[in-house]
Amino acid sequence: MEHTLKGLTVEEQAISAKAAGKQLALLTTDEKNEALLAVADQLAKDYEVILAANEKDMQAGKAKDFDAAFLDRLKLTRNRIEDFANGLKEVVDLDDPTGKVTSDWTLENGLQVSRITVPLGVIGMIYEARPNVTADATGLALKSGNSIVLKGGSSAIHTNTAIVEVIKRALEQTKVPAEAVQLIQSTDRKETAKLFTMKEHIDVLIPRGGASLIQAVVDSATVPVLETGVGNCHMYIDKSAEVEMALATFLNAKTDRPAVCNALETLIVHREWLEAHKADFVKALQDNGIQTHGDEVAVQLLPDCKTATEEDWSNEYLSLDVAVKVVDSVEEAIKHIDQYGTKHSEAIIAEDEEAVNVFMKTVDAAALYHNASTRFTDGHALGFGAEIGISTQKLHARGPMGLPALTTYKYVMKGTGQTR
Amino acid sequence: MEHTLKGLTVEEQAISAKAAGKQLALLTTDEKNEALLAVADQLAKDYEVILAANEKDMQAGKAKDFDAAFLDRLKLTRNRIEDFANGLKEVVDLDDPTGKVTSDWTLENGLQVSRITVPLGVIGMIYEARPNVTADATGLALKSGNSIVLKGGSSAIHTNTAIVEVIKRALEQTKVPAEAVQLIQSTDRKETAKLFTMKEHIDVLIPRGGASLIQAVVDSATVPVLETGVGNCHMYIDKSAEVEMALATFLNAKTDRPAVCNALETLIVHREWLEAHKADFVKALQDNGIQTHGDEVAVQLLPDCKTATEEDWSNEYLSLDVAVKVVDSVEEAIKHIDQYGTKHSEAIIAEDEEAVNVFMKTVDAAALYHNASTRFTDGHALGFGAEIGISTQKLHARGPMGLPALTTYKYVMKGTGQTR
Repeated sequence: MEHTLKGLTVEEQAISAKAAGKQLALLTTDEKNEALLAVADQLAKDYEVILAANEKDMQAGKAKDFDAAFLDRLKLTRNRIEDFANGLKEVVDLDDPTGKVTSDWTLENGLQVSRITVPLGVIGMIYEARPNVTADATGLALKSGNSIVLKGGSSAIHTNTAIVEVIKRALEQTKVPAEAVQLIQSTDRKETAKLFTMKEHIDVLIPRGGASLIQAVVDSATVPVLETGVGNCHMYIDKSAEVEMALATFLNAKTDRPAVCNALETLIVHREWLEAHKADFVKALQDNGIQTHGDEVAVQLLPDCKTATEEDWSNEYLSLDVAVKVVDSVEEAIKHIDQYGTKHSEAIIAEDEEAVNVFMKTVDAAALYHNASTRFTDGHALGFGAEIGISTQKLHARGPMGLPALTTYKYVMKGTGQTR
Repeated sequence: MEHTLKGLTVEEQAISAKAAGKQLALLTTDEKNEALLAVADQLAKDYEVILAANEKDMQAGKAKDFDAAFLDRLKLTRNRIEDFANGLKEVVDLDDPTGKVTSDWTLENGLQVSRITVPLGVIGMIYEARPNVTADATGLALKSGNSIVLKGGSSAIHTNTAIVEVIKRALEQTKVPAEAVQLIQSTDRKETAKLFTMKEHIDVLIPRGGASLIQAVVDSATVPVLETGVGNCHMYIDKSAEVEMALATFLNAKTDRPAVCNALETLIVHREWLEAHKADFVKALQDNGIQTHGDEVAVQLLPDCKTATEEDWSNEYLSLDVAVKVVDSVEEAIKHIDQYGTKHSEAIIAEDEEAVNVFMKTVDAAALYHNASTRFTDGHALGFGAEIGISTQKLHARGPMGLPALTTYKYVMKGTGQTR
């Protein structure tokens, strides 16, 4: 195979990606799309190579007694690989986010000013053992004119290596330089951590995965980070909430896909509402197998409710567990969210406009919902076409990040000798 | 005085600012403007208190033998204080950057999605002994609905304390909580460095000052940083450049205000142009007292040209010195800028469209100029009305940052019980 991916240090890989990014920035949308289609075809064609490599990772994972959910995320099938290819084709259909003039004007002296979107440059992607990210992130990076340096979980190293080799093989037949995609194969933590501080070669780091992975990147990075993902999401049911709407949105947010970041983790409920609709609420919990962890009042009111600890308020369950806090006002609910929320998605179910107004104006999160489930904080659900992650930070991009989040801009000034 | 500003730890100050920010986010544009006008009036009225405090700092500065430029930046006069007040009045006239619906659509299920600009929250401003920043940054922060925690150079501590006391006194008569403005008075480095890692209370850090101050913040911050300011700016004179235009833009970029970040530091010049126009170029250097530091070819061609060291290519002179590199192509010029540029402002003087095209497409900087001086990278010059700094990073905001750079957005979803 031409690309053994071997023998380069992390720094050499980053430098190579940077140089390739320069070439990439000069390509047309059509040239980038042709490359993505070539990659999609090659992945679909070479699925056997990828499956063979994946089998090695699966064997190693089973030998290490990784749990079923972990192995399920790691496991590839021919269908899943075809999903990668289809995902790339969807990216082809998305609007090219670069080269857009987002603002232009002329100064009195005649200097023409244009603000034009451009690629960020080199994206460092740090993720866990989910091979789909390897293909998805590469597609989004290339479409937006960026090089990408991939650092996936070491348990997926054979799979990722095979995927990236196929991608590079396909790129060789296109205008996109194969060096625009780099996979870090070193498993030496010290060596891979260099990625986090290589400001001169890497323009942004995007960690995707659990809270501990994201924290590790944030804590040691000097390269700017686009923080993604951790969603300790709350729903507040006001005393003015309609009972059916409250129950339906609560159940959807909690049970539709408990393991994802926009799922509900803590229910904050007004005491009067809970007292009035206790029977319906308890039945909903029981019918759906939801385990509550409540404050003192909740424990008194709800059967089988465990006493919540600090841990329950702070962490994502990602399961059918829910923390329950009983409050006497929307202000008390907001205070709790201020303390424990992760600025992802927060909902209020209420008919009282004043309560809704205060909630919407003062809760600090990427997405606020009135009378709806939190589950819509997602690039696909919102119609962005694809997403590189969900930002829980405030700078650059907030909430679901589509292709535009992978661009910056530059001011391009056209003059005829202007001086100041 | 009501606000002694004493006795709070840096963390307590940040918490207080955060709480005040919540109130501030609820105010109308008029309420914020009234507060800014009240502050402007109070500063103009209480100038004597500020001048007395400034005199203490000046005495201490002279005793420590600080240089004349430093003392000049530190020194206040009644006129300069009136400039602060006028600056605040100008901010009143600027458009409120918050509450703007930048995008809105409705999903098929009827969920209404709006993306609305909101304040960042709490801004941590770290700067040197320039008391004007205390007033200017406070005005921009409050107008955009943000609290601000100020950490100015310790040599200006009496001046800054007096200014902030006046500001807080004025705010007490307005809807803006006085706690929205905090001045860190501690000079204990360990204590003040806490500001850099207080992610739960501070939303963004903006360092303003020399390269070493900015580097110190970037290196130790886990709070997101808006990097500003260092401008190792280049101008490339192509062989196709018109001689008069090249000389005029070069001289303007180099000599108009050598100490500012958008001033020229390195001239890259095509060998053929230099050979053809050597006499005019040398005369221009001599007439303007410009000292050159060149590569081997420049040293041979130019009289009195010192040999450039690595330092000369890397650092800002901020004086009438200029590094000179002679090249044989635009590609060679771009390679030099890639290596030494700080992504601030880069110019090409050329008539050859192909050279201009390559330069504009591949040079990575906030502002690129064709046939103009680099001196226009400035919020006032570009018509932004005011600027909090010039970003040399790629995330969030690039180039001159006006009020919109002090905002983020949130998605506000209005539903009628939507579930997924």
